[in-house]
Amino acid sequence: MKVWEQKPVNDEGHLLFGGCDTVALAKQHGTPLYLMDEDRIREACRAFRRTFAALGVDGMALYASKAFSTLAIYRIVAQEGLGVDVVSEGELRTALAAGTNPADIYFHGNNKTEDDIAAALDAGVGSLVIDAFEEIEAIAALARERSQIARVSVRVKPGVEAHTHEYITTGSDDSKFGFGLADGCAMRAVEAILAQPSLKLIGLHYHIGSQVFEREPYALAADRTMHFVRAIRDTLGFEIEEINLGGGFGIHYVDADAPIEAVKHIQMMVEVLRTHCDKYGLPLPRIKVEPGRSIVGEAGLALYTVGTVKELPGIRTYVSVDGGMADNPRYALYQAEYSACLANRPHDANETTVTVAGRCCESGDILTKNVALPACRRGDTLAIFTAGAYQYAMASNYNRLRRPAVLLVRNGQAAPIVERESYEQIMQNDRLPDWLG
Amino acid sequence: MKVWEQKPVNDEGHLLFGGCDTVALAKQHGTPLYLMDEDRIREACRAFRRTFAALGVDGMALYASKAFSTLAIYRIVAQEGLGVDVVSEGELRTALAAGTNPADIYFHGNNKTEDDIAAALDAGVGSLVIDAFEEIEAIAALARERSQIARVSVRVKPGVEAHTHEYITTGSDDSKFGFGLADGCAMRAVEAILAQPSLKLIGLHYHIGSQVFEREPYALAADRTMHFVRAIRDTLGFEIEEINLGGGFGIHYVDADAPIEAVKHIQMMVEVLRTHCDKYGLPLPRIKVEPGRSIVGEAGLALYTVGTVKELPGIRTYVSVDGGMADNPRYALYQAEYSACLANRPHDANETTVTVAGRCCESGDILTKNVALPACRRGDTLAIFTAGAYQYAMASNYNRLRRPAVLLVRNGQAAPIVERESYEQIMQNDRLPDWLG
Repeated sequence: MKVWEQKPVNDEGHLLFGGCDTVALAKQHGTPLYLMDEDRIREACRAFRRTFAALGVDGMALYASKAFSTLAIYRIVAQEGLGVDVVSEGELRTALAAGTNPADIYFHGNNKTEDDIAAALDAGVGSLVIDAFEEIEAIAALARERSQIARVSVRVKPGVEAHTHEYITTGSDDSKFGFGLADGCAMRAVEAILAQPSLKLIGLHYHIGSQVFEREPYALAADRTMHFVRAIRDTLGFEIEEINLGGGFGIHYVDADAPIEAVKHIQMMVEVLRTHCDKYGLPLPRIKVEPGRSIVGEAGLALYTVGTVKELPGIRTYVSVDGGMADNPRYALYQAEYSACLANRPHDANETTVTVAGRCCESGDILTKNVALPACRRGDTLAIFTAGAYQYAMASNYNRLRRPAVLLVRNGQAAPIVERESYEQIMQNDRLPDWLG
Repeated sequence: MKVWEQKPVNDEGHLLFGGCDTVALAKQHGTPLYLMDEDRIREACRAFRRTFAALGVDGMALYASKAFSTLAIYRIVAQEGLGVDVVSEGELRTALAAGTNPADIYFHGNNKTEDDIAAALDAGVGSLVIDAFEEIEAIAALARERSQIARVSVRVKPGVEAHTHEYITTGSDDSKFGFGLADGCAMRAVEAILAQPSLKLIGLHYHIGSQVFEREPYALAADRTMHFVRAIRDTLGFEIEEINLGGGFGIHYVDADAPIEAVKHIQMMVEVLRTHCDKYGLPLPRIKVEPGRSIVGEAGLALYTVGTVKELPGIRTYVSVDGGMADNPRYALYQAEYSACLANRPHDANETTVTVAGRCCESGDILTKNVALPACRRGDTLAIFTAGAYQYAMASNYNRLRRPAVLLVRNGQAAPIVERESYEQIMQNDRLPDWLG
């Protein structure tokens, strides 16, 4: 499937996004600039609600906010009836500041600090998802001290780990996350939690990976986890009321990507759950899923200005832009692939394959390799598609570059949801000790 | 050689760094916490000055500030008589705010924006290091407009690229940086610059890589560049007055590292230059070098608190700490190796090999794999050595974690040079458009 087969343009031939002239926005707000398409985000949220309704199950999507965590996105997903998954006090505070109902917030992470736990208990989050034995004691103790009952889940490792285009079931227990099913740790954790009067176990959680394209790992993880649900009932006499099936649903970055829609994965997993429940006389648990990338990824567009173009005959052509690994480290981290066009002439024929380089002083600062584009010139506006997830969220001030602005676009309207950093902000925490004069 | 063979301790058995009790600092300031040893930074700076004096050459080290860019470090290196290399308006502004003499600032980068160029001309930097043909015209035009003469250098690609433990001379022309010597681009660039009355060409620059351990690539690059210096004289009748030999001098991260001291590389390169000059009747150019990592890398120590410890029999032991790829993405980016100890009991025997994982919600969030440590427990203070370069500089708010504080330590005194971010700061640029209610 083509990424962005339709490239709507206005009378000036400029790429439209959310009905807005992307070249005009780049000029007005400067580049690098990120645009987020509000309708697309809302539609992605609604697809999950529709799916649960159609399946007739008690299900809820929790937006995995680490993909893109700002006040506005928490507000939007809350308006669409989604909960959120947070992994730090910073994400929790942002969600609360946006008005998220604390009961709809799940607090994850492989290593929660005492401050995290206190903040989660203060807020009264829907669940603290316990990841390690140390956390059982730490959460129980703090809840006890405060005469609170902490709602908790257990993150299990179903021994399935999926990557794009592949999944592994051996060695996949090698993860910093969760309690192994195979090695008995998960059962011991459930037992330890049930023994703590200040903890209320509400369910199980697992997550098999990120940008997953295949059905099998989801089916296998659901199957193994339901076996565990049955084992808990049979061994400890406790009925698990909720299963959090995680996320990782793949999306489109390049034409070769062939993701299965997130909701199709969910339909399939619910089938697996139903089969188990029917067979073993278990009630169908409440269902949570945690989409992040699939809600915001394709809703994002990154705009850059082309600066220098270097044709190295027989090697490659470097097109350098005014952003790079500081606003988007995904190529540097994962050799990410992208699709792109020139926003000022999106329908010019692609006639070359180039490497888009960032402006950071580092050879590894590449935005994407081998992308098809028309011949690029200084001053062109380069648009990179599928830029909504794990880009602004991971942005740094490397090379003391300012982090970009992010605009929300809808029906031809645009408004900042993140202002561009100022140079004063970059320096705001720098101090000179007295003795340096 | 051992990294940190000597681990000084105080009466409480706590690791000392810059004469300060690291455990007490971690408690007082919280973790993650970075410490920078001022004496070590100053000594590294002085070694360059001593080397140039002993060689009897007109040489100057420019601190490659992208390694760690804060007000205090610019102040320190200026006090030690070093110039600085900057790659953005943000680094330039920080250097100027710290009182750096503009004439000692070199402005690098593969893609300078019009704003960068204007800021560099406003400041009157020592040199704008031209990296692409587009920049020749852009800088010349802006200087002309302002009736300024811009001092510029040319970044050349000597066709040598060095990586740790290896270097390549084929295919190494595949770089986004500079003008190729082999393909004639560098000569064309020099010619084009000399034709611009608003540009004054002061020299050549090259840089062969980062964390380099070998002599050969430095020697080869110096040799090829001097051949080019001669070709410029012979072809264009122009004498190059300055050569900037770049940096990339390797440092110690793990015991197996065997770096050659930066100053030894410089001695050797000066020999190569002298040989050429003697042979071809060229005056010895002024020399610049650009150490970054070798000035601040080993001067840094990162402190974390251990949270959870997971022993996965037959697989590995994960020790999770309260930082991670958000404050140090070097493992995620480069599979970096480190040495570490427990600051609260640095002389306990290492009895295990562990993977230190961060707290970010991502499997790839590892700080370092397979590091020897005593058995770790929740609450231990983990110290990671050689943490001064490319860590704080690349820190992000991924997972909305706050970026850490950095303390300057000296003779038992400690003072913040970077304050820890607040949650308010993390949210300070977030906006809610009116229509989100």
